[in-house]
Amino acid sequence: MSTPENPNSIFPKGDRASADYFTGTAWVRLLLPNDEAVHTQIGDVVFEPGARNNWHTHPGGQILIATHGVGYYQERGKPIQVLHKGDVVRILPDVVHWHGASPDSEFTHIAINSNTQNGIVTWLDRVTDEEYLSLGK
Amino acid sequence: MSTPENPNSIFPKGDRASADYFTGTAWVRLLLPNDEAVHTQIGDVVFEPGARNNWHTHPGGQILIATHGVGYYQERGKPIQVLHKGDVVRILPDVVHWHGASPDSEFTHIAINSNTQNGIVTWLDRVTDEEYLSLGK
Repeated sequence: MSTPENPNSIFPKGDRASADYFTGTAWVRLLLPNDEAVHTQIGDVVFEPGARNNWHTHPGGQILIATHGVGYYQERGKPIQVLHKGDVVRILPDVVHWHGASPDSEFTHIAINSNTQNGIVTWLDRVTDEEYLSLGK
Repeated sequence: MSTPENPNSIFPKGDRASADYFTGTAWVRLLLPNDEAVHTQIGDVVFEPGARNNWHTHPGGQILIATHGVGYYQERGKPIQVLHKGDVVRILPDVVHWHGASPDSEFTHIAINSNTQNGIVTWLDRVTDEEYLSLGK
């Protein structure tokens, strides 16, 4: 029951994201596997409306590039930021955060995991509906 | 005398690329400045048809993500590779290479410079017309 492919998307949708680390439906395509030469792993993630990943950290940091739709990004203790196509987010190592679609729009971003010699991701708790719907409250 | 903006582009065109390191007309938008936390610098580059950068190397490697048009990528001693939207190129540290548009199409890519603690770029000679037009010869 996938949504129709966005005709302007750069990449076809990847595999269904793990329900262990995502709430709602998301699709992950690996664009660049990690290796010992460039220490970088890149993926393209499509979130259906309302979908988001769990709270998590990246030991080597991460950069998000929003390419389609309207998304959310939040660091622990800060308000939700709304993301649109062309927005770039720098996530410092070990900062607790989550990202996903807004409630009414699909959202696609490229996720660049840097300095992977330090690790890629540490998953934490789910983002509750109360946290997800906290924008402007 | 810029070409019209591609309506599907993710980013507006940046500044004119330096004639010292590019042949033809290209536009560079800095998406993520380098820093000491994520050791990554990201730019978006639009090449007009026929435009290309000089031969060069990246001490920390680079990843290209093709987002629009038809482009060329070549490593020293190998044939030109043709790039289309969605193609990803991993460039190992210190590999001599160049990239640009094909002769008849504009080309846009995101360029991700990794491991910038090792340096970002070392510029070398221009790509001659003979080298640029060597595809299939």
